[in-house]
Amino acid sequence: MSAQQSRSATAFAPATVSNVACGFDVLGFAVAALGDQVTATVTDRPGISIRILDGAESSIPLEPRSNTAGVAAATLLEGAGDRVRGRGLELAIRKGIPPGSGLGSSAASAVAAVVAGNAALGLGIDAPRLLAFALEGERIASGGVLHGDNVAPCLFGGLVVVRSLDPLDVVPIPVPKGLCCALVRPHIEIRTSESRALLGSTIPLSTAVVQWANVAGLVAGLFRGDWDLISRSLGDVVAEPVRGPQVPAFREMKQAALDGGALGSSLSGSGPTVFALCRGAETAERVASAMQRALLAHAGIAGDCYVSAVGGEGARLVETPAPPTPLSRGADRCAS
Amino acid sequence: MSAQQSRSATAFAPATVSNVACGFDVLGFAVAALGDQVTATVTDRPGISIRILDGAESSIPLEPRSNTAGVAAATLLEGAGDRVRGRGLELAIRKGIPPGSGLGSSAASAVAAVVAGNAALGLGIDAPRLLAFALEGERIASGGVLHGDNVAPCLFGGLVVVRSLDPLDVVPIPVPKGLCCALVRPHIEIRTSESRALLGSTIPLSTAVVQWANVAGLVAGLFRGDWDLISRSLGDVVAEPVRGPQVPAFREMKQAALDGGALGSSLSGSGPTVFALCRGAETAERVASAMQRALLAHAGIAGDCYVSAVGGEGARLVETPAPPTPLSRGADRCAS
Repeated sequence: MSAQQSRSATAFAPATVSNVACGFDVLGFAVAALGDQVTATVTDRPGISIRILDGAESSIPLEPRSNTAGVAAATLLEGAGDRVRGRGLELAIRKGIPPGSGLGSSAASAVAAVVAGNAALGLGIDAPRLLAFALEGERIASGGVLHGDNVAPCLFGGLVVVRSLDPLDVVPIPVPKGLCCALVRPHIEIRTSESRALLGSTIPLSTAVVQWANVAGLVAGLFRGDWDLISRSLGDVVAEPVRGPQVPAFREMKQAALDGGALGSSLSGSGPTVFALCRGAETAERVASAMQRALLAHAGIAGDCYVSAVGGEGARLVETPAPPTPLSRGADRCAS
Repeated sequence: MSAQQSRSATAFAPATVSNVACGFDVLGFAVAALGDQVTATVTDRPGISIRILDGAESSIPLEPRSNTAGVAAATLLEGAGDRVRGRGLELAIRKGIPPGSGLGSSAASAVAAVVAGNAALGLGIDAPRLLAFALEGERIASGGVLHGDNVAPCLFGGLVVVRSLDPLDVVPIPVPKGLCCALVRPHIEIRTSESRALLGSTIPLSTAVVQWANVAGLVAGLFRGDWDLISRSLGDVVAEPVRGPQVPAFREMKQAALDGGALGSSLSGSGPTVFALCRGAETAERVASAMQRALLAHAGIAGDCYVSAVGGEGARLVETPAPPTPLSRGADRCAS
């Protein structure tokens, strides 16, 4: 690739569902239905500048040091050292993932920024190092706590266990054919950093045992393609009891999902988006609609809904900055 | 089977390694190398009586309500109800597993008692209910805390996740061919109930996250047959830091295991037995000897050592009450 060709690059990074009920800070999967795009253009002045395309996202900071994509790209430049001396990046961010939705919005911007920046600068840095750069961006969105369960599935795709961040150890887990995800995003916003503070710093040992028993069951269920075991293991006794009540009509949405035939349901990340895992896209469509109706009926709040295969493709360079077509999105597609 | 034939039955129940580093109270596997045998004989008086064969085990209570096999068998009688009215069981226990060793001694006696009693009385009760009876026996050995990570692999064999006790959910996990276990039992005794009290009732959330990340990694590693992943996941940040220092030369034994090529090493249950998982029986033999030498060199304490495949057969009826031949046992077999 010539220097001329590599002056600009655009990357798409998917939304992600982290925690996945029992796997707090450890489990996450990519959601093909939506994502962020970042176009990185090499500039002749050091540092990062940011533009938000489509203009609507007023809650995204333009100051690079406060923006997850900005911090991630700055860390990339720092990591590249002398190779990028005197040069910088302009990032044009097209948000496909609503900020504060619990769908890995900050992770996706950070990942797209480093993937695009890496290509634009022709650095050829490998994925594990890119992950570390993106994590630095994600860190500012989560109150300083490093957790890779959004960034890793966003970058690599699939459903993964982040066994360790230092040293980095991301373990891909197979996903049974037909495992789908229904998502409903209430039109409210929750900040990960505030939501995390609710959890406290200790948990009962007996609670932790229940949680890791479920993690073991879920991983085994995914390997076996055992739908019942997956279903039985989708419980969260750590974060959901604290965060669930913060989300309007969470209980009713979850119940609607289970009544509709979902394998299990919980908060996506720290919420307010609620996910439900389902066997087959048809069930997922039905469940998404039922959750959306429950949200409206019990909280009087509208919500977008999405249906997606679990564990789609990870971040990638794209030719044009046009947003991908989601499988389904918004009330017009999901409401029955 | 006629009533006459079913008046007496003998069952063998294997030793077990519980916790398996990261899976506190949840993961366990059967150890083919040693086990307990119980002969149950139907009597014409209600209740349980106990005899200890070989006479050496003075620490085993003969009072049925204080004996794990006695409590388990009494729960079996209670569960059978009118079918056993007026009858009782005499249990003759042959301990192959040293009590207080961390090798599931109490679980094995309880399991052997219910398997033998079930056969002797011709009850035909299924394994999940037998497990519940055995758990009641195990409960008195662990200070009232119910945990199934010894009883379940003892009864079913293999390596299992006890995802839940109520309702019962035991998940078998595949074991890669050649996965072996080296065990060294220092000649000291630790009571599970006392050891459990050391742990406290809460743990830091960040510690819990590390633990369930390792549980997820270990289960994935076992499914994949990924030796490196198994090795990386064999960490315990919950129980080992508290219980390890209670075992003389634990640190040195563990280091000797790792230096000798073990995949990982930790306490078997609450100790004092130390286990090391190894790839292949030869490595396990070498590792067992190295651990045994470290125990003697650094604590001046002798120890028995055993080498076994991970996840052998579970409890079963046997024809004669002769103890099985261990793969290797004692200093004469393991010391180099």
